[in-house]
Amino acid sequence: MLAGRHVGLKSAPGLKDDLMVARLAPGTTVAGIFTKSRCPSAPVEWCRAVLPGGKIQAIVVNSGNANAFTGNAGDVVVAHTVKAAAKLVGCPRKQVFIASTGVIGVPVPPGYIAASLPKIVSELKPNSWRRAAEAILTTDTFPKGAMATARIGDTQVTVAGFAKGSGMIAPDMATMLGFVFTDAKIPARVLQTVLKAAADKSFNAITVDSDTSTSDTVLLCATGKGARHKPVKSARDGHLKDFRRALEAVMIDLAVQVVRDGEGAQKLIMIDVTGAVSAQSARRIGLSVANSPLVKTAVAGEDANWGRIVMAVGKAGEPADRDRLSIAMGGVPITAAGRVLDDYDEAPVAAHLKGSQIHIAIDIGLGRGHARVWTCDLTHGYITINADYRS
Amino acid sequence: MLAGRHVGLKSAPGLKDDLMVARLAPGTTVAGIFTKSRCPSAPVEWCRAVLPGGKIQAIVVNSGNANAFTGNAGDVVVAHTVKAAAKLVGCPRKQVFIASTGVIGVPVPPGYIAASLPKIVSELKPNSWRRAAEAILTTDTFPKGAMATARIGDTQVTVAGFAKGSGMIAPDMATMLGFVFTDAKIPARVLQTVLKAAADKSFNAITVDSDTSTSDTVLLCATGKGARHKPVKSARDGHLKDFRRALEAVMIDLAVQVVRDGEGAQKLIMIDVTGAVSAQSARRIGLSVANSPLVKTAVAGEDANWGRIVMAVGKAGEPADRDRLSIAMGGVPITAAGRVLDDYDEAPVAAHLKGSQIHIAIDIGLGRGHARVWTCDLTHGYITINADYRS
Repeated sequence: MLAGRHVGLKSAPGLKDDLMVARLAPGTTVAGIFTKSRCPSAPVEWCRAVLPGGKIQAIVVNSGNANAFTGNAGDVVVAHTVKAAAKLVGCPRKQVFIASTGVIGVPVPPGYIAASLPKIVSELKPNSWRRAAEAILTTDTFPKGAMATARIGDTQVTVAGFAKGSGMIAPDMATMLGFVFTDAKIPARVLQTVLKAAADKSFNAITVDSDTSTSDTVLLCATGKGARHKPVKSARDGHLKDFRRALEAVMIDLAVQVVRDGEGAQKLIMIDVTGAVSAQSARRIGLSVANSPLVKTAVAGEDANWGRIVMAVGKAGEPADRDRLSIAMGGVPITAAGRVLDDYDEAPVAAHLKGSQIHIAIDIGLGRGHARVWTCDLTHGYITINADYRS
Repeated sequence: MLAGRHVGLKSAPGLKDDLMVARLAPGTTVAGIFTKSRCPSAPVEWCRAVLPGGKIQAIVVNSGNANAFTGNAGDVVVAHTVKAAAKLVGCPRKQVFIASTGVIGVPVPPGYIAASLPKIVSELKPNSWRRAAEAILTTDTFPKGAMATARIGDTQVTVAGFAKGSGMIAPDMATMLGFVFTDAKIPARVLQTVLKAAADKSFNAITVDSDTSTSDTVLLCATGKGARHKPVKSARDGHLKDFRRALEAVMIDLAVQVVRDGEGAQKLIMIDVTGAVSAQSARRIGLSVANSPLVKTAVAGEDANWGRIVMAVGKAGEPADRDRLSIAMGGVPITAAGRVLDDYDEAPVAAHLKGSQIHIAIDIGLGRGHARVWTCDLTHGYITINADYRS
């Protein structure tokens, strides 16, 4: 059951929706991952505190105000909102989760969101996905949803979710939020393990500008209301494999939509790192390349400047050997064993770079660790959006 | 004794100088610090190998070609150059240091630089500072030099140097190189200690775009040819204190010139972090703020968006407490104890941001660690330079 409506937190023209409520059946389990920021928002601190309970019946998300760096006032807003939502839904307070995204440092009046809850809760409907997805947006240019089905044993279950993010991981109006739901029945402990694994291949494998929000939140809720399936006891259960594949697919779909909508982005960049000493090392090297302003501007300029990729691999601080490094773009090998190929022809790479989906493959030549990450190019649009945003 | 001349490595219009040679008296001691890149250039690998010898009689620097990611061919170029320079200067090969900056991945013919050495060595003069400083430039818009005097005991000595860097720490034509000379007599071991300490407060405290070159090199050479002074035995010698101050001043002067010349930079940003748990923690927090594209674009847009500073402190991963954080810009307190001040007036901060030198002060409120770092704003100019550079 979802709803979205306008309650006055977004002052942007057109009175866009800025409050979203999701209501979940009693017994729904929950897993969550949050920003690694040392200055998290009040809602993130609340969610972290109640997550160990493992149960969820309501999610309240507002856009337009991040309720971050608002001191004790921020905690009071959360307390009011949680109390009101718990009463309306009829559940313990610790089963209410909160997320906020928007401007940092501007306190909301304590009962402002709480006062809007009776109306929006009365509007909850089973299929308001689009309106809910729109109500959590800030600088995003489109709502982001994804769905997949999976089999647990002989039973079909569904995984569906929506997300927001544009400066990906940015503080103003561009925090990354993701909410994923399934009708499978999965204990909270197992849910947390599968969410973390899927996040490492999706939301934790994307970057727009390397900046980390105070408010990033991803929740995975399992209602258990689908057809009855074989019980799940461990994340390693063989019959959970297809569910994990579907969850990963939904989360990657949402994550790539966030990058596509990256502030000023004109090109999606997918980076495959192979041959690293470990998967973690591969991901760090991939993110070093994905976060490099020089790599991102080269792609924006459609410049086959592979020297910048070498630089970004080198600065990752992960094991690498200049004389084993191989780089390809758009499937065209450029370097091998530490130097450019004798017969390297830049023309097909230049043609690839004129497209909107750029592929960079990097083989470190040291081991079997591999990872895939996504980013976007760094354009004049990013500067325009971020140099002029708040004013 | 210095010289610079054009030998054909820079193809840019105007035939700018692209080769620099410095000749130093026998017995000159040397200290060096180099890029942390895991894919360093062939010249960096050579310098690291000979640095333990502690002596230097020649420095050969070319601009226009980085001799990085050139595989074995790069090592051959270095070997030819070192051999020719050692013969001309009359010193062991291990007293010849090499640096290269320019395009990555394009091999130079093995004897090309070596062949140009007899001519340039014949042109060496004691006061060719400016021409030497110009010969090492790439995308820089001005040569960078600095000088200071110091007393060791009752004796006056001089510290002088020049540097290059613009995309600071970038791979193409924007590697950071610095060469500092003194007529003091200081053992190589002591020289290394004082260079490292001064670098942490200067070249290692600046960032333009967070990208790390394959070729960064800073050398400090002590000829011992000044008036005789009280012997130096340890970096902790009380009579070395004034020399260390002068060295730090020269290196900070050069480092700040590099940031001022940052690609597309319109504003110099100085960030003071106090109250961190350690000096290292303070520097990491400062660099996290300095590297944040969102902070840098806010300054470019003259937007007093302090929420982005909170975000960048939070993402540094260093100990910080939301409720103890204080931020000021241009000397105007903005936040204290985790929230904006009740009487905060944005007008004076907005006025400060219209200037060309921006000051950000961050107090973490946890300890006594402090650090100062410098960066520049992120502008459309950076995108224009780097999206279109090589093509």
